[in-house]
Amino acid sequence: MSSPRNQSFRPPSIADVDLGGFWGDRIDAVANKTVRILYDRCVAAGMLDQVDPSRPVPDLRIPFMVKDGFTAGTVTTQMFWDSDIAKTIEATAYAVYRKRDPELEALIDAVIDMYARLQQPDGYCNSWYVRMQPGRRWTNLRDCHELYCAGHMIEAAVAYAQATGKRKLLDVMCRYVDHIATVFGPGEGQLPGYCGHEEIELALVRLSRETGRQDYMDLAKFFIDARGTQPHYFDEEAHRDGRNPKDFHFRTYEYNQSHLPVREQRTVVGHAVRAMYLYSGMADIAAEYGDDTLTDALEILWDDLTGRQMYLTGGIGPAASNEGFTAAYDLPNDTAYAETCASVGLAFWAARMLGRGPDRRFADTMERAIYNGALAGLSQDGSTFFYENPLESRGGHHRWEWHHCPCCPPNIARMVGAIGTYMYGVADTAVAVHLYGESTARMTVAGAALTLTQAGDYPWAETVTLTIGLDRPATFTLHLRVPDWAGKAGLKVNGTDVPADPAGNTGYIALTRDWADGDSVALHLPMQARLIHPHPRIRADTGRVAVMRGPLVYCAEGADNGADLDLMTMAAVDGATTARVPELGGAVALDLPVALETDAAWGKSIYTTTPPKAETAVRRFIPYHLWDNRDPGEMLVWVRRAGGA
Amino acid sequence: MSSPRNQSFRPPSIADVDLGGFWGDRIDAVANKTVRILYDRCVAAGMLDQVDPSRPVPDLRIPFMVKDGFTAGTVTTQMFWDSDIAKTIEATAYAVYRKRDPELEALIDAVIDMYARLQQPDGYCNSWYVRMQPGRRWTNLRDCHELYCAGHMIEAAVAYAQATGKRKLLDVMCRYVDHIATVFGPGEGQLPGYCGHEEIELALVRLSRETGRQDYMDLAKFFIDARGTQPHYFDEEAHRDGRNPKDFHFRTYEYNQSHLPVREQRTVVGHAVRAMYLYSGMADIAAEYGDDTLTDALEILWDDLTGRQMYLTGGIGPAASNEGFTAAYDLPNDTAYAETCASVGLAFWAARMLGRGPDRRFADTMERAIYNGALAGLSQDGSTFFYENPLESRGGHHRWEWHHCPCCPPNIARMVGAIGTYMYGVADTAVAVHLYGESTARMTVAGAALTLTQAGDYPWAETVTLTIGLDRPATFTLHLRVPDWAGKAGLKVNGTDVPADPAGNTGYIALTRDWADGDSVALHLPMQARLIHPHPRIRADTGRVAVMRGPLVYCAEGADNGADLDLMTMAAVDGATTARVPELGGAVALDLPVALETDAAWGKSIYTTTPPKAETAVRRFIPYHLWDNRDPGEMLVWVRRAGGA
Repeated sequence: MSSPRNQSFRPPSIADVDLGGFWGDRIDAVANKTVRILYDRCVAAGMLDQVDPSRPVPDLRIPFMVKDGFTAGTVTTQMFWDSDIAKTIEATAYAVYRKRDPELEALIDAVIDMYARLQQPDGYCNSWYVRMQPGRRWTNLRDCHELYCAGHMIEAAVAYAQATGKRKLLDVMCRYVDHIATVFGPGEGQLPGYCGHEEIELALVRLSRETGRQDYMDLAKFFIDARGTQPHYFDEEAHRDGRNPKDFHFRTYEYNQSHLPVREQRTVVGHAVRAMYLYSGMADIAAEYGDDTLTDALEILWDDLTGRQMYLTGGIGPAASNEGFTAAYDLPNDTAYAETCASVGLAFWAARMLGRGPDRRFADTMERAIYNGALAGLSQDGSTFFYENPLESRGGHHRWEWHHCPCCPPNIARMVGAIGTYMYGVADTAVAVHLYGESTARMTVAGAALTLTQAGDYPWAETVTLTIGLDRPATFTLHLRVPDWAGKAGLKVNGTDVPADPAGNTGYIALTRDWADGDSVALHLPMQARLIHPHPRIRADTGRVAVMRGPLVYCAEGADNGADLDLMTMAAVDGATTARVPELGGAVALDLPVALETDAAWGKSIYTTTPPKAETAVRRFIPYHLWDNRDPGEMLVWVRRAGGA
Repeated sequence: MSSPRNQSFRPPSIADVDLGGFWGDRIDAVANKTVRILYDRCVAAGMLDQVDPSRPVPDLRIPFMVKDGFTAGTVTTQMFWDSDIAKTIEATAYAVYRKRDPELEALIDAVIDMYARLQQPDGYCNSWYVRMQPGRRWTNLRDCHELYCAGHMIEAAVAYAQATGKRKLLDVMCRYVDHIATVFGPGEGQLPGYCGHEEIELALVRLSRETGRQDYMDLAKFFIDARGTQPHYFDEEAHRDGRNPKDFHFRTYEYNQSHLPVREQRTVVGHAVRAMYLYSGMADIAAEYGDDTLTDALEILWDDLTGRQMYLTGGIGPAASNEGFTAAYDLPNDTAYAETCASVGLAFWAARMLGRGPDRRFADTMERAIYNGALAGLSQDGSTFFYENPLESRGGHHRWEWHHCPCCPPNIARMVGAIGTYMYGVADTAVAVHLYGESTARMTVAGAALTLTQAGDYPWAETVTLTIGLDRPATFTLHLRVPDWAGKAGLKVNGTDVPADPAGNTGYIALTRDWADGDSVALHLPMQARLIHPHPRIRADTGRVAVMRGPLVYCAEGADNGADLDLMTMAAVDGATTARVPELGGAVALDLPVALETDAAWGKSIYTTTPPKAETAVRRFIPYHLWDNRDPGEMLVWVRRAGGA
């Protein structure tokens, strides 16, 4: 199956989608709690002391990393504080759509003023290199996140301008990008470089779309095209800087996906977030330029990631050592890194793969990552965070109030805040519904003003009702995703049964009609609990099964089931009953019959020839993304499969 | 069940047991190959440069360890080179009984001459503190292995004197111990200390038994009694030496079993080898002094170790961080530390628990540790070694030619070389056969000279035949262990069936008769393959089974079965067939019907609702101790249990 490439679908803007139900509650948490926490923690970390030119240049707060192969004094996470502030601004911008917060907005405006004052006459604007290491700018793109910080500031500027109408940061960043465009490029006297941490590529696409500046888009394409070519920029840069290129902590340029030109890459490697941001930028450029060479490479990478390197939750990047990928089917559960940011990044990439048309391969995975691997990173009340997202815990893994590398809290906050933009795609005469959820979206299609309202308590209930509001009748195609997990869907249009067969290979029902105001569509997506089997080569999961319902991965948690979860075995989920859990926001829990191999009848011996006795019991499973919101304890996704399953 | 305490059984001396069959081959490998390798590697490491006073004081070869909490410059493994040399001397001494090697003996004699010249006028004799850090002796017993080195030198001295009749090293060590006895003790002006790494306790018992010196035995008892008492010696010592006692890399005195007085210890904790050596010394002292308070403590510790903290192989100490114990039932397979030395130490302890009479709890575990966790540490040809002994390998674990901390090679060599001493226990009117194996043992019992000959190809064949040789008829009890694994044994005396019921709780058949020259006993020990189930609380083994036959744990290895061993599931071993494997010394392999969950019929999805297809196959299992003697590959002991097992 290859991607649809004949259409150009763009997401609605954030302002055009109002969320209710499940996502409404989550956005309220972000707007009421998370964004203020993000700001406060940035302040508490001392970040503004670094940014504000009117304050004395502060002492180093986070020491330079000293590790094997790292030259002492090269890198500190403090170098990318601009990105933490930027994501905080971006998340706050999205929160503004939900709830104005003049006090917080004033604080953000003050931060933006600092950046305006920080900006150098030539446009350069990075707090680390202006204030902490002046004279060192553009000397180590490989390690020091300089263009990455610019990228996040660009995203923040676009979002804040859209949300508040205030363009001050946008203007600052345009001037900065104008400067960057003089420094980097293929021309004489320019640096043919790119960032060790991808991000600016996708940010420049956003900036270009916001400003209409094609040169920004071209700069994004330049960074993507230059990546991994020979002579290798990071080698040359190191030599220029008096460093040995081999003196690289991560040893291989696979770490930052610069080991090969991007169109020649066939395997998802290295740091997971970097990979996702690169592929997101590639997908944007592929859509903008109709570049099939990029789409071909992305298809191969997509299959590698989702077919061989992805957790059931849409978590990716199993290893802490490189915060990234290792080998096919290496997906350990209890030590999973599976950074929240990486699942957010997977959602970014998947969303952009939908830019060329509806395809449930991408939307199903986007839904998987959003509802499971990503959303787990934010507590129910929006106040605490996961950085790593293991699929099993012996009881020692708990949410953080903050992290020394605080990338994940604002990243999950900005994803939740912007969730409406992931739900839809709009083309000239088509609307695609990628994600379901109570919401009202305003879009223009076939020249008409469409208000599309979803009702139905998704993801808890099985029927999604879509109501069409139109200022005048219009002929367009409504693409409705039938998730692979749903099996056979049911469909009614204006109360009448209609075949619910997906069109071609897309996995979307394509309803092309003359639509009128008040039309309604009811989509029934069966949501019985289902037993999931892992690929036999996933060593960590062999002989195990997991439970899903709808888009949600379920887990057993100590709070419901006590300790020693791995004594449980499961053969089927036919006997599952559902229950709403008030303290988890009314989430649907599954109560499942299981067998427990207890040690009750076990003698003194540690090893015997007598098999353990099993007793039957019922164990409660809750949505994975809601774990660790109650009393701390164990957690288990992959349960041992009982005989005969 | 409590230990028998009413008898005193001592092992035969090495010279009194000649081995054939299985152990004969292993001892030949040690005598022909291993002991020379040990000597050569000690020389190559530069150890003799440190010992020989006629050479210049060498530079440091192994840097001081610098770790969190360790003061730089406190510890290097080079501090315990004396122990590596000592174990090499001891192993060589045992090899001498098998095969004289005048050339190697001359080299060892030269080393002994070095120690004689190294010895100080006051008797002190430790190469590190005489040559490398003069003036620092007895300043850091906690970390620096000073008395530990003395202990190994004592064992070497006793063994070498017994094997060769040369008493030079024994005299050196007696003078050293005389000096130690002036330094340490409860008296005025003496240090109430003991070593951070136990060993000298059991060594002093050996020295006392060899020399008849009761004061050596009393010194051993002093070290045991002083351990862990308050005020804590290691605190006081640190203060005297200007160190902060809290500045201890391993944080807790549990690491060296000095957290409590030994009689108050209830849980096996800390560094595994240290624990085993301590308990061995305690068992010796319990037997020598009839000290039930020690035996009571040892019983509790024994149950904790063998009931909650021991691998199926008799491997112990799962963690690399402390080379030791963690928590009950924490027995990970692929990351198991399970140091060869620790299983050797468990055999030492178990053997000493038999000093108060036959009890198969101890002998069964001794056999388990010797044949599996310990013997795995030595390659079939005696030339390469395992330090860690995991019960599962993905293909990356292989034998070493040497190790930076080369404790295991000489330790397994000295265990194999002295294996005859573990096989029997002799009391005034009783002989206990603890281990079976082709051998001829000469013992004195009831005033008669007994020659006990075992035949029968143990551990491969089921029937052990014991032939009694006597210089005159004698009445004594022959205790024959019926291993727990054998279930119901069969017994014939002089060809006539005799009840094979173990006496009381001992697990040993007690044959009290008037024995005459030429009497024969045939013991039949059923050896069908059996499926072993782990305690349900061993998290790493849940839902898994292992295969044993006789005393041997079996494993599947890549060399026979290819990769992806964990795709295999097993329900029973009834269909097992046996085969002798010539390239593994004629070992009995088990060919077992299994199910394989292959990915042959698996689609592109990484997760699906369709269970994997299983096909039937036959997989070969070999004795665990023989793994990694052929082509490198995966290895697996605990196999997934198929449904219904």
